[in-house]
Amino acid sequence: MENMYDAIIVGGGVIGGAIAYSLAKRGKKVLLLEKDRLANKASGAAAGMLAAQAELDEDGPLFQLAKKSRDLFPALKKDIKELSGIDIGLINKGMLKIALTKQEEQEYKRIIAIQQRAGEQVQWLTGEEAREKEPALSNTVLGAMYIEKDGQVEAPQLTLGFLKSAAALGVVIKEHIEVQSFHYENGNVAGVITNEGDFISNNVIVAGGAWSNKLLQDSELKLEAYPVKGECFSVCTHRPLFSSTIFSHGCYLVPKQGGRIIVGATVIPKTFDQSVTVDGISLLIERAKSLVPSIGEAEWEKVWAGIRPQTADGLPYLGEHPTCKGLFVATGHFRNGILLSAITGEVVSDLVEDKPTEMDLTPFRLDRMSEILT
Amino acid sequence: MENMYDAIIVGGGVIGGAIAYSLAKRGKKVLLLEKDRLANKASGAAAGMLAAQAELDEDGPLFQLAKKSRDLFPALKKDIKELSGIDIGLINKGMLKIALTKQEEQEYKRIIAIQQRAGEQVQWLTGEEAREKEPALSNTVLGAMYIEKDGQVEAPQLTLGFLKSAAALGVVIKEHIEVQSFHYENGNVAGVITNEGDFISNNVIVAGGAWSNKLLQDSELKLEAYPVKGECFSVCTHRPLFSSTIFSHGCYLVPKQGGRIIVGATVIPKTFDQSVTVDGISLLIERAKSLVPSIGEAEWEKVWAGIRPQTADGLPYLGEHPTCKGLFVATGHFRNGILLSAITGEVVSDLVEDKPTEMDLTPFRLDRMSEILT
Amino acid sequence: MENMYDAIIVGGGVIGGAIAYSLAKRGKKVLLLEKDRLANKASGAAAGMLAAQAELDEDGPLFQLAKKSRDLFPALKKDIKELSGIDIGLINKGMLKIALTKQEEQEYKRIIAIQQRAGEQVQWLTGEEAREKEPALSNTVLGAMYIEKDGQVEAPQLTLGFLKSAAALGVVIKEHIEVQSFHYENGNVAGVITNEGDFISNNVIVAGGAWSNKLLQDSELKLEAYPVKGECFSVCTHRPLFSSTIFSHGCYLVPKQGGRIIVGATVIPKTFDQSVTVDGISLLIERAKSLVPSIGEAEWEKVWAGIRPQTADGLPYLGEHPTCKGLFVATGHFRNGILLSAITGEVVSDLVEDKPTEMDLTPFRLDRMSEILT
Amino acid sequence: MENMYDAIIVGGGVIGGAIAYSLAKRGKKVLLLEKDRLANKASGAAAGMLAAQAELDEDGPLFQLAKKSRDLFPALKKDIKELSGIDIGLINKGMLKIALTKQEEQEYKRIIAIQQRAGEQVQWLTGEEAREKEPALSNTVLGAMYIEKDGQVEAPQLTLGFLKSAAALGVVIKEHIEVQSFHYENGNVAGVITNEGDFISNNVIVAGGAWSNKLLQDSELKLEAYPVKGECFSVCTHRPLFSSTIFSHGCYLVPKQGGRIIVGATVIPKTFDQSVTVDGISLLIERAKSLVPSIGEAEWEKVWAGIRPQTADGLPYLGEHPTCKGLFVATGHFRNGILLSAITGEVVSDLVEDKPTEMDLTPFRLDRMSEILT
Repeated sequence: MENMYDAIIVGGGVIGGAIAYSLAKRGKKVLLLEKDRLANKASGAAAGMLAAQAELDEDGPLFQLAKKSRDLFPALKKDIKELSGIDIGLINKGMLKIALTKQEEQEYKRIIAIQQRAGEQVQWLTGEEAREKEPALSNTVLGAMYIEKDGQVEAPQLTLGFLKSAAALGVVIKEHIEVQSFHYENGNVAGVITNEGDFISNNVIVAGGAWSNKLLQDSELKLEAYPVKGECFSVCTHRPLFSSTIFSHGCYLVPKQGGRIIVGATVIPKTFDQSVTVDGISLLIERAKSLVPSIGEAEWEKVWAGIRPQTADGLPYLGEHPTCKGLFVATGHFRNGILLSAITGEVVSDLVEDKPTEMDLTPFRLDRMSEILT
Repeated sequence: MENMYDAIIVGGGVIGGAIAYSLAKRGKKVLLLEKDRLANKASGAAAGMLAAQAELDEDGPLFQLAKKSRDLFPALKKDIKELSGIDIGLINKGMLKIALTKQEEQEYKRIIAIQQRAGEQVQWLTGEEAREKEPALSNTVLGAMYIEKDGQVEAPQLTLGFLKSAAALGVVIKEHIEVQSFHYENGNVAGVITNEGDFISNNVIVAGGAWSNKLLQDSELKLEAYPVKGECFSVCTHRPLFSSTIFSHGCYLVPKQGGRIIVGATVIPKTFDQSVTVDGISLLIERAKSLVPSIGEAEWEKVWAGIRPQTADGLPYLGEHPTCKGLFVATGHFRNGILLSAITGEVVSDLVEDKPTEMDLTPFRLDRMSEILT
Repeated sequence: MENMYDAIIVGGGVIGGAIAYSLAKRGKKVLLLEKDRLANKASGAAAGMLAAQAELDEDGPLFQLAKKSRDLFPALKKDIKELSGIDIGLINKGMLKIALTKQEEQEYKRIIAIQQRAGEQVQWLTGEEAREKEPALSNTVLGAMYIEKDGQVEAPQLTLGFLKSAAALGVVIKEHIEVQSFHYENGNVAGVITNEGDFISNNVIVAGGAWSNKLLQDSELKLEAYPVKGECFSVCTHRPLFSSTIFSHGCYLVPKQGGRIIVGATVIPKTFDQSVTVDGISLLIERAKSLVPSIGEAEWEKVWAGIRPQTADGLPYLGEHPTCKGLFVATGHFRNGILLSAITGEVVSDLVEDKPTEMDLTPFRLDRMSEILT
Repeated sequence: MENMYDAIIVGGGVIGGAIAYSLAKRGKKVLLLEKDRLANKASGAAAGMLAAQAELDEDGPLFQLAKKSRDLFPALKKDIKELSGIDIGLINKGMLKIALTKQEEQEYKRIIAIQQRAGEQVQWLTGEEAREKEPALSNTVLGAMYIEKDGQVEAPQLTLGFLKSAAALGVVIKEHIEVQSFHYENGNVAGVITNEGDFISNNVIVAGGAWSNKLLQDSELKLEAYPVKGECFSVCTHRPLFSSTIFSHGCYLVPKQGGRIIVGATVIPKTFDQSVTVDGISLLIERAKSLVPSIGEAEWEKVWAGIRPQTADGLPYLGEHPTCKGLFVATGHFRNGILLSAITGEVVSDLVEDKPTEMDLTPFRLDRMSEILT
């Protein structure tokens, strides 16, 4: 048995990192355990969009959570740079959600109207206006929803930024340690049992992404969650082809530092297989070229895939275990893990500290879809 | 539920691969599941020595097992090349076990006498004789045990060779699938439960290396086994510095194809952490230079580490579960996994087929040290 | 000035390696200089086809050279393995030159008739026969020219195999050394001037691939040669999709060890730019899928490009400088450098030794197209 | 012949990049040619110290140049981030130049006195004071010169930052193009001859690092310059071991973002061989551990080497060719290329524009040591 921690976090991705960072800022003594390497799964594979308005078009609790999270990034950028030296690559050059069909045009105009009524900054650009803004766009683009406030970060850098800042604030990070089950005391969680021994704490936070269900097996809670593979590739040009993030049904192009562009992502549910297939790449190339034809001349860089945690109702799980006090879960962020990481760190820390959370977390509670197994 | 297999193998390393290959040669329908990528742990990290006489100096069941296994490699080399196109890199240029102290000299001479009485080919070389054979050896070398029959292979190629040959023979290989527990029927194993669903078979073989204990948790069998990290580095020269494998207390230098040399390995027990430390590399460099000073001028290639499965009594576990029929285990091969893989494939296939094994496996049975937990 | 060598070879690719190996076998003292790393340009990028009959369909001096070279590989394989431990991956499972159009069908039938008259083994397979042989072939395949004797090797392994075998035989290899010009004595070559000093020899062999012209600038010989970029990608499956090499207009698929497949190659003349573009990959994927649709499910591995040396008349340059005795050139092998390497090593060694060559090299002489600049 | 450029820069390292960036800011139309990939030689290998006071202890023209350059970095950081999105990683946490011997202590105290008289910020710390500042320092440290203003950047990021910012401003960058010689008109330079054709400009700037002499061969100017290899390795910890740059005779440790540390560098003159040897690494490990013993527990990352351009008198070459108008040279920056890049960009742009330079460049003129060859 090792000494006591205020909290043990299971998972070294962006969600675990954000919680570690947030708890450390509040003075907590934290241990973070990762079964593989840090930032090695979905967090390191993400394109880094902060697409609150582009991804989550309808109002609702997830949209509110996303907007709150998006607003935290400018301050995070400074803090992480100061603590760890890491630049999270925050870029605020807006997002174009592209309509290629009449149906998409109508749908986006409808969403614009809703968002504008809710006070959001968003506008419709005709095809010509969109090409004026980004001359690299294809002539077949009918128009675009332009969202000025949706930006992006470098996902691997954000993840490592949270984690290394947390380490600088005293969080103990251990890689290659696998949590097998939990210790309990009087129905409360009391620590974790790992392949390198036990660690004791009254607060355990499961932030294992698509692997979270396996960790919870033992606790008799079954999340309605499943993995979704997303394949990506990246290219590079010396002079940037465009500066806004280009977003469409089935494909996005995210311009990164130094002329790099990330093209993503396929959506392949219910597999943990991280391999990239020829068909996946073929589909992405075709879609990317239909949006920005000149990407054909860009230099190929590499391919990769991430396994994202999706839930049956599309909302993340954020809450305390319904029967086991001290056991918290934060997963199910699907394509919005990077965007939601900042607010997730804050609200989970509130839960651990037993403070009221800024937002009502009821829509995200753990037992909303599951029956407790007995 | 997927269709029935004659056997399910858990683990895509050299032991799982050898068993898959052997069962496939016998016409069995086999499924092999690997939680990560093939050949990605200890099997891909090994230096590939077939050091039956150099590592296992005293007679006994492990020595007998090792010698039988060593004899299988020439035929394996041909079969694997034919089936998969993979060259396992079998080299039979002998091994020099180096004495740097008077005490080592005495010990090795004693072992030579024992091995010679047992009919093994082995001889003592004085320092001068050793340097005549390998002029790169240091002047401080007092002498060496020369073992003509101990050769070596390329460990990653052997592992992939087994696996890809098995695939060519019809074995179904799935990566990124993690076995969580087993199905049972009337006290017998009936299949595996994984993060991508269930698979049915009356024979399940656990070949998970240092991760095997975790898999068996569920079966109420606790192996007296633990992980041991070994760090390595490799270098290269255009003209080979030496052709024999150089073996000593605390360091070995294995000459590979094209002038490559692998230098290994540290021994760090009870960790799953695969990172390589500055101290580990520093120690290996020092020892390598004390054996072959000219290695200092060689070109640096890379570093890596593997996590090897060791047991409390130093013998591997090879056998059927004491109470759960159809559940087999093959692990605990420590530094001899590559050498022992060939015979392990054969004897475990015999067990699965319920045939008498060529050798008495009693010394390797699963319950020899454990109490069954109840 | 360093000591005398029998010959200095400029270029550490497959041609330079083959010549070094051949001269070393004949007992010559050889220095090989490479400006970058060994096997780092076209030789390391090649797919390794030994496509004598598939690439070079018409009889003529190049066809004769290619067939002679192809016959040398079985012996080479053994020698290189013995000397360096390197397996060159020689596979003799035949080649299918695929007809997708009626026009190709007619053309290939005509070539088959010519080759058969010349005594070559080659036959026409209907679409059904081709699919019987390789069930992975597309239904749109009309038929194929089947060439039993055209095999393949692992190009990077062959290149390193020549070079490391040469080193084992005493050839001195220096990387990162750039030849700037030559020393002359009485109109004969007398050595090379490099960025790390001068080296003396009466025989200098330029084997710089697409970079050869630059080296010869100084010698007043201008080859009618130019670089041609070829882009490739590779994929992998556990069970091989096919075992013959699949060859067509604009795309080939070469099955390698362990289920790997190399797909090549684009043809982009007059550039030294080794970057791979999205368009290049897109084109190759499309063509590969039209030949073998199931390649879409294979796992993506990587992309790369090589810069191959082409000549105005399509024949390599093999000969002595027309006015400067002792200066030899071997380049311009375009897509056949791997295939022609073996015979090139032999005939260039004959030239250096001033022996009669087995074949008439007149068609490959250096001044056949150039005017001597004065 | 391609169209006219205001200037052609030969070399895609930090010096070429800085000049391209500076000329582009002044509205010039620039072409930059790189024979390999951008940032691929010494610039990508540097540790990134801005060690004006630590490296260049004595007053003189180089010291003045270095201080002026150091002062340009805060503004550069902002501009490059804005133009290219690249963070150059500027850190201003000071430098400790460590004394391990009494002799070094005396020498450094003498330098401190000189620098203080010249108005520089610098102070002596006793061993205890140094360890108070950086507790990781060894007990054998006798004291340290503390230089508050000497900071550091990420060298590869700075180099790409210059280049990609230049591209964003309109500079045309071409990789894989090798300049073979120059065009002249009436004794002035008129363009460059490359392996992909000719490019025309009245201003050509040679910024080829250690490869510059070869480029100038043709111009009858021989620089008294030579290559010096420097080997490095890097390690990582989650929590930073120290925050100042640690500098000593024969070894420096530069703390980077996220807990990374670069340890450099050996000094091996007169070779272009970029390979790293076991002896080089062994020496660096030993020295690093003598300064910061706990580095032994850090995780190994990788090794690399760079070839730096040194000159006979230790000063860079910055100037116009003595007889050929329009041909400029900027090389010979040795270990200070990163530090001096910013001011080099400015003064070379002044020369190209035929403006008075801020500083007297006479000490750096090209013909100060050479005789013009005729």
